[in-house]
Amino acid sequence: MNESELPHVVLLGGGFAGLYAARALKPARARVTLVDRRNHHLFQPLLYQVATAGLSAIDIAQPIRKILRKQPNVEVLLAEAKDIDVAGRRVILDRGEPLVYDYLLVATGATHSYFGNDQWSRYAPGLKTIEDALEIRRRVLLAFERAETATSDEERQAYLTFVVIGAGPTGAELAGALSEIARHTLVRDFRHFNPSEARILLLEGADRVLPPYPPELSAKAQQQLEKLGVEVRTGSKVTQIDGDGVQVGDERIAAHTVVWAAGVAASPLGRCLGAELDRAGRVLVRPDLSLPDHPEVFVVGDLISLKIDGKPVPGVAPAAIQEGEHAAHNILRALDGKPSTPFEYQDKGSMATLGRRSAVAVLGKLKLSGYLAWLSWLLVHIFFLIGFRNRFVVLFEWTRAYLTYQRSARLILQESPGDPDSDSGSGDEKAKGGEGDSSKA
Amino acid sequence: MNESELPHVVLLGGGFAGLYAARALKPARARVTLVDRRNHHLFQPLLYQVATAGLSAIDIAQPIRKILRKQPNVEVLLAEAKDIDVAGRRVILDRGEPLVYDYLLVATGATHSYFGNDQWSRYAPGLKTIEDALEIRRRVLLAFERAETATSDEERQAYLTFVVIGAGPTGAELAGALSEIARHTLVRDFRHFNPSEARILLLEGADRVLPPYPPELSAKAQQQLEKLGVEVRTGSKVTQIDGDGVQVGDERIAAHTVVWAAGVAASPLGRCLGAELDRAGRVLVRPDLSLPDHPEVFVVGDLISLKIDGKPVPGVAPAAIQEGEHAAHNILRALDGKPSTPFEYQDKGSMATLGRRSAVAVLGKLKLSGYLAWLSWLLVHIFFLIGFRNRFVVLFEWTRAYLTYQRSARLILQESPGDPDSDSGSGDEKAKGGEGDSSKA
Repeated sequence: MNESELPHVVLLGGGFAGLYAARALKPARARVTLVDRRNHHLFQPLLYQVATAGLSAIDIAQPIRKILRKQPNVEVLLAEAKDIDVAGRRVILDRGEPLVYDYLLVATGATHSYFGNDQWSRYAPGLKTIEDALEIRRRVLLAFERAETATSDEERQAYLTFVVIGAGPTGAELAGALSEIARHTLVRDFRHFNPSEARILLLEGADRVLPPYPPELSAKAQQQLEKLGVEVRTGSKVTQIDGDGVQVGDERIAAHTVVWAAGVAASPLGRCLGAELDRAGRVLVRPDLSLPDHPEVFVVGDLISLKIDGKPVPGVAPAAIQEGEHAAHNILRALDGKPSTPFEYQDKGSMATLGRRSAVAVLGKLKLSGYLAWLSWLLVHIFFLIGFRNRFVVLFEWTRAYLTYQRSARLILQESPGDPDSDSGSGDEKAKGGEGDSSKA
Repeated sequence: MNESELPHVVLLGGGFAGLYAARALKPARARVTLVDRRNHHLFQPLLYQVATAGLSAIDIAQPIRKILRKQPNVEVLLAEAKDIDVAGRRVILDRGEPLVYDYLLVATGATHSYFGNDQWSRYAPGLKTIEDALEIRRRVLLAFERAETATSDEERQAYLTFVVIGAGPTGAELAGALSEIARHTLVRDFRHFNPSEARILLLEGADRVLPPYPPELSAKAQQQLEKLGVEVRTGSKVTQIDGDGVQVGDERIAAHTVVWAAGVAASPLGRCLGAELDRAGRVLVRPDLSLPDHPEVFVVGDLISLKIDGKPVPGVAPAAIQEGEHAAHNILRALDGKPSTPFEYQDKGSMATLGRRSAVAVLGKLKLSGYLAWLSWLLVHIFFLIGFRNRFVVLFEWTRAYLTYQRSARLILQESPGDPDSDSGSGDEKAKGGEGDSSKA
């Protein structure tokens, strides 16, 4: 039958769930369209390393169309889904015609939430996109530069105080990496202060770090963080954030660099589906990951709230991958006129790294911390990285960083690329030519 | 004697000239301050590879303070020089107190010039900073994405037409790389068109490409560019540039991606020195590279116009390095109460690469083109790259690109990092944690 007569499967989101769903649809006799507003799939678990100058953006990102280039039934569309008309089976995009679908997979994930204090986002950026990571990197490196030219001790101390709000995996990993930058990477680079004077504060509202982890690992993680020089404060709620610092209860902490790693809200697209949502705006799906009353619509990943035998499926990459693949498997069955099957989650465990030789890991019944957990973290993340180039370069960077304490990506870029007057003082980085040549700094 | 009583040497610009001057001042019994508005030294000759997704920004950039960390008499200052008071021996910065100097080296280079048509810069960015390179990369990759969703052949052709204005080394290298992206890198990635349909036009006002090179090499270069699929047009002056294309004489070329690689103007700081300037705003210095009437002020690099035995010293990296080192040598002599010596330029030749196995090179009397020139280009550039990590990774990227035609840095980033609403549709790139974790896409 004619190409255009094939059933149309639309996937929204090129994260773990969407990407693995697209791959699982390889045998489908269908036209598959994957829509993402970014051209790249991001290996999000390593994003904090871009924010802390350990890795470059391209080390953890790959063009989605490159990953799927050899799958002829998939078309990749760079566009943003603005609305979903489940009754009319159409996805409204930011540009071009609406996409009419026979089957839809929504995997647009979640973003962080400021719990109604969105004005904080200016002063305390979150870490969800590569742009976020580059902005955090810019602020962190710039803070040390400003400390070098500070005219008073108070000013310098404010520049050397880094506050990470939220001690989930991302917050804990960020805090550990920031401490390593201050104590090792930059230690000989400045003339007017010792970078190891920097204070890294990790603030957590709950009574322990890494709340999703078993209490004994939370304790181990806090010990390791403190050994790395991080000031861990549990049970401390931030009540105010501005350009000069944060307010915690009745204590004022002067700090120019604050990172937000607390709270998560589902992607707004969840609200278009007409299904029941939980407190965090996540969609309550049926056991087969489809939408109640809409068996042709599947929702997966951080966008859903799903309990199996009363146990919630956690918001981790392996769950997203399994959900994406299972939804794809149900779409394949539907294409063959077969009924869908319920999703079963296989807990592969979870791990968080905190610094050199410091990590915690839950692998089934096994609870690891320290060196062994750190090694398994390295191996797992290298293994799951997409693309030979990235595995190779990341392994090289990590080996080098381990041996030299150096971080490659210590680049402060202007907030807005293409800044028209970004030449004077930027040095005579010479080109190879004469008059005909514009390539001058 | 006391640290603060040592003579103060101020270097403006951390490009090739400023950086090599700082290194040459290692033995100086003086306080040396290097000022740059960027935190990084840029290996400018490879910037076009960042603009064409072959290399990542960090592969060709290094933090200046990291390069100079082991030189205790040097202090690196991240600031922008706004004005120079040669009479008062002070440099006015964008922030903080003016810098009072005993000796000054001005090496703030040049930027490209739109010959009085600055409004063109919006439509035809130049290539001088990393931000420029990332912006050009963004436009090039986005043009192919837009071509995929184009609704008419005219629209698609406009997105697939790339115009490079100026056939100096940078322009020629950009055009060659763009052609390779279209014909090889992207060839299987799109479903609605064949990327090799893309047109790459290289426009040059002069009567041949690579005007600074010997005519026979210009001819060889043009042959190689045309073999790579570039449409070379010499003697064609651009009279208008807007969002839809360019006007050349009475021909209108519809194109959404235009790059400016023509024309250069010296850094505005040159005007603060009260010395005679040439047409391009470059400072006329004395044979010892100092300022007439100001033996304590040296000016080097793209900022100067210098003739030796009637032959102008070209605007190439080796000249910048030699000038920087010679000015430093004269400062060392002055510190010892010795007279300065005139600068002598050693022509190491120049080379430009055009694509795989395509390049031209002038090495002394030797004129090379094709494979041999390309090989020597590779070796020279790997050798002069600063830092083991960058040499290693760049060599790896080049080998890989040569074998697979792939380019690693195919990342489209938002124009302004930290874009507040950059979540929906960006996929559920999952993190490793639960509620406490913001690291969601």
